[in-house]
Parts: sequence; C-alpha cells; structure tokens
Amino acid sequence: MREVFVVGIGITSFTRLEYPLAEIAAYPGMMALKDSGLSKVDQVYVANMGGGRVNHQTGLASAVVDQLSLAPAGAETIENGPASGASAIKTGFMAVASGLCDTVMVIGAERMREVNDLESTDFVATLTHPHAEYIYGVTLPSLAGMFARLYMDKYKVTPRHLGMVAVKNHDHAMDNFFAHLHERITLEGIIDSPEASTNNPFVADPLRFYDCCPVSDGAACVILASGDAAKKTGKPRIRLAGVGQATDTLAVHDRKEPTDLLAARGAAAAAFKMAGFKPSQVDVAELHDAFTILEIAESEEVGFFKKGEGHLALEKGETRLGGSLPINPSGGLKAKGHPVGATGVGQAHEIVLQLRGEAEKRQVKGAKTGFTCNFGGFGNNVVCLAFKKEG
Amino acid sequence: MREVFVVGIGITSFTRLEYPLAEIAAYPGMMALKDSGLSKVDQVYVANMGGGRVNHQTGLASAVVDQLSLAPAGAETIENGPASGASAIKTGFMAVASGLCDTVMVIGAERMREVNDLESTDFVATLTHPHAEYIYGVTLPSLAGMFARLYMDKYKVTPRHLGMVAVKNHDHAMDNFFAHLHERITLEGIIDSPEASTNNPFVADPLRFYDCCPVSDGAACVILASGDAAKKTGKPRIRLAGVGQATDTLAVHDRKEPTDLLAARGAAAAAFKMAGFKPSQVDVAELHDAFTILEIAESEEVGFFKKGEGHLALEKGETRLGGSLPINPSGGLKAKGHPVGATGVGQAHEIVLQLRGEAEKRQVKGAKTGFTCNFGGFGNNVVCLAFKKEG
Repeated sequence: MREVFVVGIGITSFTRLEYPLAEIAAYPGMMALKDSGLSKVDQVYVANMGGGRVNHQTGLASAVVDQLSLAPAGAETIENGPASGASAIKTGFMAVASGLCDTVMVIGAERMREVNDLESTDFVATLTHPHAEYIYGVTLPSLAGMFARLYMDKYKVTPRHLGMVAVKNHDHAMDNFFAHLHERITLEGIIDSPEASTNNPFVADPLRFYDCCPVSDGAACVILASGDAAKKTGKPRIRLAGVGQATDTLAVHDRKEPTDLLAARGAAAAAFKMAGFKPSQVDVAELHDAFTILEIAESEEVGFFKKGEGHLALEKGETRLGGSLPINPSGGLKAKGHPVGATGVGQAHEIVLQLRGEAEKRQVKGAKTGFTCNFGGFGNNVVCLAFKKEG
Repeated sequence: MREVFVVGIGITSFTRLEYPLAEIAAYPGMMALKDSGLSKVDQVYVANMGGGRVNHQTGLASAVVDQLSLAPAGAETIENGPASGASAIKTGFMAVASGLCDTVMVIGAERMREVNDLESTDFVATLTHPHAEYIYGVTLPSLAGMFARLYMDKYKVTPRHLGMVAVKNHDHAMDNFFAHLHERITLEGIIDSPEASTNNPFVADPLRFYDCCPVSDGAACVILASGDAAKKTGKPRIRLAGVGQATDTLAVHDRKEPTDLLAARGAAAAAFKMAGFKPSQVDVAELHDAFTILEIAESEEVGFFKKGEGHLALEKGETRLGGSLPINPSGGLKAKGHPVGATGVGQAHEIVLQLRGEAEKRQVKGAKTGFTCNFGGFGNNVVCLAFKKEG
C-alpha cells in the first residue's frame, strides 16, 4: 500500500452562501490547487448528502470537474450522511494507495440554505431507520436528546458540562475566520442565569439550542498525493497515516448498550492501528460535535479518555486550546458550522493547517499528530482519520 | 496493485418492485453472498442516484449493511448518475487493489416507481448543466435526440438502424428472466408499417418510443475479492482486469465535435490498457443503450468498430447473439431495463454470467473476455470495465 500525503487545502466560510452548489464545491478546489501548485489531478471525489434532493443537482462530481476544467479526470460523488467528507477522503486514500492515481482532489460540499428549519430536520431524518424510527417521528435531534438523557444519567454528566462544550467551541471559533458563528457565549448566559431559558430554549430535552450545531452552507478541500507526487509539490509532509471505518445497527434501539458508540470505537481503533500511534500521542483533534454530548462521548470512545470521564477532562480545561489535548480548535460543528457533506473534509483541513503550523491565533503549538472523527447517521457509520507530520 | 476477482453475483428482476429501496438493494447482496459462499465482507459500496430525492433514504449503504447484518463493515454510497454502478465497482476495485480490503460487496440499486413520467425526466435532467442546459428545458431524451440527429446526418445512420438495435435487444431480453421487457418487436411493427407512427410515436425526434429504455426498479450485486480470498471461495476465476474512467464537458454544446464521445473513448482505452487486451479480442460486451443511438456510437468509441461504421456491423448481425461480437445479450438498458444506479452493476453481472458459462439460452459460446461501458450524464463521465476468465 503506497503512502498518502496531503499536499493542498482549501475552504470556504461555513455560513450562508449565495452560489450554486457546484460553484460552492469548486471554490475550495481552486484554492487547494493553488496551495499545492498543481494544475490538474487524476481524480475528484465530492462528498455531498443533499444535492439530489435539496439543490436539484446530481452528478455533482462531474459538474465540479467541469467547473475546474479538470476533464478527463475521473469523478464520483460519495455519500455517507454527515460522515460523507471523511468517507470521500478514505476513498481518495485508496485511489492513491492502490497506485491507480497519483493525485486526488477530495471536496466536501453542501448548500443547505434552501431548507428551512422543519425541512432540514426532515431531510437529515432520512438517515434514520425508515420503518423502525422515521415513521414514529424520530429525528436526529430527538435521537441525540434520548442518547444524552441516558448518557447523563449513567455517567453523571450535567447540563453545565454540555454548556462547557458549547462555550469552549464558540470561544475557539472566534479565531477562525471561516467559522459560521462568531459569538462568544458564557455558562452564565446559556445555563446559570434566569434568562437562560429564554436565551437557550430546549430543542430536544435535555439538549438546548446551544447544544446543537447550526445549519450551514460550505465546502472544503484536501488534495491527496503519493509520496513522489507530494515531494514534487514541496509542501510540508503531512501524511494521512491512518483511515478507519466501522458501522453499527441502523436503529439506535437495536444496540445492546445505546450509550456505547461501537462504530466510533472501531473506526478509531482501525485508524490508530494503521497510523502506528496511540490516542495518548495525539496533539490535536477534531470531533463531530453536531450535538455537544457527542464531543464528550466521542472523546472517550476514540480513546482519549476513559469511558465516562470525558466530561471530567473537559471540566479541567484539558480539551481547550492551551490544554493537554485541544479538541475542536476550529470551533467544531457547534460553532464552525456543519454543512453536512463538507464537515469531514473541513475537519481534515483544520488538522492539516495545525500540523503545518498555519493555524495562527488558534495554533496548537508544536502539533505533530492529528485526529478526526466524522460521525454518520446516529453513530451507524463512523470514519476516523489519523494524520502525522513527517520530516 | 493487487489483482481483483469477482467471486459472487446476484440480481433482482429489473421491473416494478414493491419493496423499500434498502430491501431492493439488499436482496442481490444476499444472493451474491450465497453464490460466493462468504458470510461477511470487509466493505459495502452501494451505487444509487435518487434515494435522497425519490425514496426519502440517505445513508443507503449503511442501511444495506444493517439489512444484511454486515456491521462493522465499512459502507459508502457512490453516485455518478447513470454510471453510478460501474463507478462503485471501480471504487471496490481500489479497495481490494490497495490492500485495504480483501472482500467488497458492490451493489447497484434504484427504486424509480415513485416517479411518474414527467418527474422521472426532470429527475434525470438534474444531471444536465444547471445554467447552460437545464433552465432552457434540456432533458436527457432531448439531448439524445439532438445527438442522434447530428450523428445520423454525419454517418448516414437511418431510423431503421435505430430500430435494429431495439429489435435485437428486445430479442435478447426474451431469454433473460430478469429483464423488464419480454416483448418481441419487429422493424415492420415499429418502423416500416403504417401503424408504426401509432405503435412507436416520437419522444424526441428522431428518437421514438422504442428508442428509449424503460424506467425500472431493480438492483444487482457483484462481490470482489483479492486473489487469495477468491481462491478460498472455489468460484471460477473471473478477473476484473481493467477499470477506466474519463470525464468530458458537462454541457454537450461545449464539445468541439458533439458527435464524438471522448469520455467513452478515454475510459475504454484506459480499461483496455490496464487489462492488457484489445477491443478486437472482446468476446461479449454490454453497452449503455439508454437510447438506441448510444449503442451504435459507443460500439465505435470503445474501439469495436471504426467511427461511423457501427451501424454497418449492426446491419450485418455482427452484434447479435451468434454474431462475431454480441452486444447486450442481457437485453441491454433498452429491454433489460435501466434502474439508473443498478445498471452498471447489472452489466457486470451479465458479463460474469457469460464468462462463467452460466447464461443459459443467451450464452455466448466460449466467452473468455468481456467488456462493459456505463455512460454517465450525457457522456460527461463514463466508466468502462474489462473482465477476463482465467485458468
């Protein structure tokens, strides 16, 4: 299996964007070409979840090839719900590792501005089990709410812990120009004060407004290359050292212990095994905090903290910028935003920026290893990636 | 790059199916597991175009893993319009070739029964250029009509030649239990007689009703395996010897010569190069005859006949079962049916059946090499596969 390096990155603001989906997708591709110094690639993968339904656009990867004049490069659209981004990176990894391609552009893109709040909840609910969940009105926020209730009861996690995730990630996003929300929040304002119930109403009890990520438009890109092709670009040697993926039952109630996220556990273990380093050796991580509870649960499942102790590390500030293992320095899905198909690529973008030492005010000093966890469905299909700075 | 073999196949009838999309998709997966003797696989790819829009189902690959109890296998949905099927096979090829997986299930599936005739035309039109084609009312049938007009003028192809493709493929489908249309037609009935204008009305002049494929539901599956894993199954050694893909401009009018299908030409050349054999050495082929004119044009572009001479070979019966190079023994998209995401996998299914010698009444005697051309968009993203019987 050939080694795979990241030689170019690009990103749009995660926000409300006016452009058509294919143009949103193409933009960070153009940035990443410029960053890498390449003018063409062998293959394009585009991660996207809603183009066919929301944007009247199928064959998105072909449209992006056309936008960027990259023909005759191969092109496919990759969908794995909110984990589409990391799935596309995994697919790009295989294309280079197999020897079929020397350079692969991986884009994640989503334009969600057409969907209003009700429609977006229904749209994302198409990820649930059609007969065992969806028809009973189950949505992703409601699953997250039920999960949070069980988790909080079992591991003594309080609403203040959830609030701490939000406060931390909003703080981090203040230094990320491309983040959707530039809004500093406090525990006082969202939990502790009498105004909290107005400022921060319940969405799916026990989850409140500030426990949920925004609905964003946006796109991000990483260009992958073989060792030789990477050398020619002269870019820092950031290696995609490990890719791991695992699935779990589609319906959450089919799981033996619903508070266990076995797919996250399995995906992380596989990524670390391939990369040859341990969770304790990770310098910076981006986890999938679509709901605040997920950052806490994933930080345990991927191996950073013991099960049930993620909230204690959070409490001590270990996962804050400046702490021993900064999680979501970009702001995470919570504050950077969550254009579903783009998210996994956005996570990788942040890690590459950190390992290059180009993250400016939110730089994790001396970061040499990075990790991402991209969470599909409600934990039924998780993809983890491990990155390493070499040389 | 490791060698890749097909060790299991399965298919549903291409027809109107009552089951939900995930169940339609899972069914041939179950057949292919039984065929291969395997009980699990490392990875599942599902090719599908319309699940998010038409069937209220995203994360389809994860749902299929759940249906077949294949967790923790990795899973992604692959979309490349009508070429999604071969794109998923190409992706599965990389997974095995890279060494990341030993066994990969590739399913193609589509449930189109929800879409009525108008909606299905609009749905497929989401493949066209959103600003340069779609908003002017361009649809796939209209593009095919304009393409056919230019092609027929330039190469002296007549409406009777188009009819010959339909008659041949309907004849072939009579011996395919899984085909959508079991209806023998004649040139007399669809072209030559006074009743032809009633029997076979224009859809997009010069293309008539019997020049267009039906709108079908259905699914197909191939299981790919490494050399070692394939040996253990004891199945015939059918090697996926070549995969090729190429893209072209999204808008057809951007092409220098609109009657040239450069993506088909490039994809075929790449597949033959990897496979190490020539078009003249192919024993049986499945081409993408969504419209009859495409079988003629593709038979030239992939290298079987000189440009402009495909209709002459057709006229002589060379492409009929019993001829020197049978094309679409399954009935093709024209009569076997065209559940878009399933089509490319259905083509591969037919070739494997032929190379195994299991095609019964439609068996191409002694077939040792096979070829498929799966055509995405209107020729903007084409994937070709070359198969070889070994040992």
